[in-house]
Amino acid sequence: MSDPNPLPSWVDGPNKSAILDFVARVTNEDGPDFRPAAERIATFDNDGTLWCEFPLLVQLLFTLAEVKRLPLSQRPELLDNPAYKAFLAGDSRTVASLPKQEVVEAAFAVHAGMTVDDFASIVGKWFSTARHPTLGRLVLDNTYQPQQELLAFLRANDFKTFIVTGGGIEFVRVVSQRLYGIPAEQVIGSSTRCSLETIEGNLALRKLPGMGSFDDRDEKVVNISLHLGRRPIFAFGNSDGDLSMLRYTLQGDGARLGLLLHHDDAAREFAYDRDFKTSPLNDGLEQADAYGIHLVSMKNEWRNVFSSASL
Amino acid sequence: MSDPNPLPSWVDGPNKSAILDFVARVTNEDGPDFRPAAERIATFDNDGTLWCEFPLLVQLLFTLAEVKRLPLSQRPELLDNPAYKAFLAGDSRTVASLPKQEVVEAAFAVHAGMTVDDFASIVGKWFSTARHPTLGRLVLDNTYQPQQELLAFLRANDFKTFIVTGGGIEFVRVVSQRLYGIPAEQVIGSSTRCSLETIEGNLALRKLPGMGSFDDRDEKVVNISLHLGRRPIFAFGNSDGDLSMLRYTLQGDGARLGLLLHHDDAAREFAYDRDFKTSPLNDGLEQADAYGIHLVSMKNEWRNVFSSASL
Repeated sequence: MSDPNPLPSWVDGPNKSAILDFVARVTNEDGPDFRPAAERIATFDNDGTLWCEFPLLVQLLFTLAEVKRLPLSQRPELLDNPAYKAFLAGDSRTVASLPKQEVVEAAFAVHAGMTVDDFASIVGKWFSTARHPTLGRLVLDNTYQPQQELLAFLRANDFKTFIVTGGGIEFVRVVSQRLYGIPAEQVIGSSTRCSLETIEGNLALRKLPGMGSFDDRDEKVVNISLHLGRRPIFAFGNSDGDLSMLRYTLQGDGARLGLLLHHDDAAREFAYDRDFKTSPLNDGLEQADAYGIHLVSMKNEWRNVFSSASL
Repeated sequence: MSDPNPLPSWVDGPNKSAILDFVARVTNEDGPDFRPAAERIATFDNDGTLWCEFPLLVQLLFTLAEVKRLPLSQRPELLDNPAYKAFLAGDSRTVASLPKQEVVEAAFAVHAGMTVDDFASIVGKWFSTARHPTLGRLVLDNTYQPQQELLAFLRANDFKTFIVTGGGIEFVRVVSQRLYGIPAEQVIGSSTRCSLETIEGNLALRKLPGMGSFDDRDEKVVNISLHLGRRPIFAFGNSDGDLSMLRYTLQGDGARLGLLLHHDDAAREFAYDRDFKTSPLNDGLEQADAYGIHLVSMKNEWRNVFSSASL
């Protein structure tokens, strides 16, 4: 039996109706838009789509804390990098002013040389106490309640839900099951290269300097193809970095749905779009209609904003 | 209710008992070796482990057929490559005499420039009629019945089954669901780099010259980390290319099982190991005991060899 009100935090209106209608159509075995469960693939961006990314991506908060903690060896080649310099100086304003790829690459460089297991362990430890700089909440409490309901609703209808994030794949995996009910193998993200080494007689994966993939914009589609091998039928993002994923999702055959969250809620969260340097929403605002993407207003369409998963 | 005889094609003996015992232990909620379902990850090599790879990997049979069919433009830089030259000459004996990485790279080069969707479509078409060169069977009928039973048994016990293949990720995905009940997103393999392009107004992924990953030996573990984000507790292979995956699987905490199939059955399939140039089993024979890997004799431990899925 299905839940009579599966999205209580969503205000009734065209976008909520579009979601309910889409799911009803693809699960109706007798209808023309039916999709077998195996094809019900939904991909979600993470930063700004499932949890708060403003004024700094969660992973950059982590990196700022880490550079204080880690005895970072002098690596003169990195000091020419403005993002790495800003991390070392604890200068979050400069970190927030730089393009995403620059800061992500510098953030990843901080943990080069560490094993993947050790990295996961310090990430887990950091999350247990980390707080948002201004909202006065644990970072773990900064996921969005309407999206939690949407993830649960899709899964109740046999969708397989994936995260496709510009953030670090190993970073997000530490909390993806706990926060979103999404297992590690359904997280796609930015990555460093790794090598397999023998450490004290055991095989271990070591993170190398240098990116394996920066999972943003077109690269999100390349990685969806690599990890998933199929085209999603549902996608949700919040920045121009998600447009390729949304367009790729919408250009397939049959019923499809793509949504962009607009952060226009200064009272309950933040209001930002074009001027957010890390990950702007600019082309998305201009082109959403032309691409058939549903633009969701946080202010007007979400009854609640934050979930209280860890309370 | 569990099947009283889940592995009918396996001969009773220490290896069958080890499999049954392992699954009983990790699924026994009251026992010390219990694992929640989310951690029940099993990884299988494909070529030589799930289907016949001798005398030529299935993908190389495909490539030999393709070079005859495709109007390959002259690419002088490739003609210096012995594997590519052998493909062009239809010289399967030379193809079989070269190391796996050389032939896989050359095989992948044949389809550079094609879209991922077009590639999947010609692969599907090829499979519909392709036959093994000497066994007189459709390639699709060359999967192993005992492994089909093992995959089904593991899944009946809430394992998630993955393929980790040196073969092409896009190639194997075309048939993984149909042959093994394994969805595309649970196939990890060798890959080419790709770019997202606009073709006639739509986004499309184009295969580029050059490998993204050659998924063999240590790289299998690197890719398991990238795609899965966790250590398997069960792994099955058949060549030295699988040893890193098996060792990595066995070195984690708690109950674990790793197996290597030994092709020693000249009557029903083939007998080969050290001298199979493409993908030898040499170190595996020497070191299996030391690594705690179970060596399975096809001749003595499998009651049947081939499945008849497509009959």
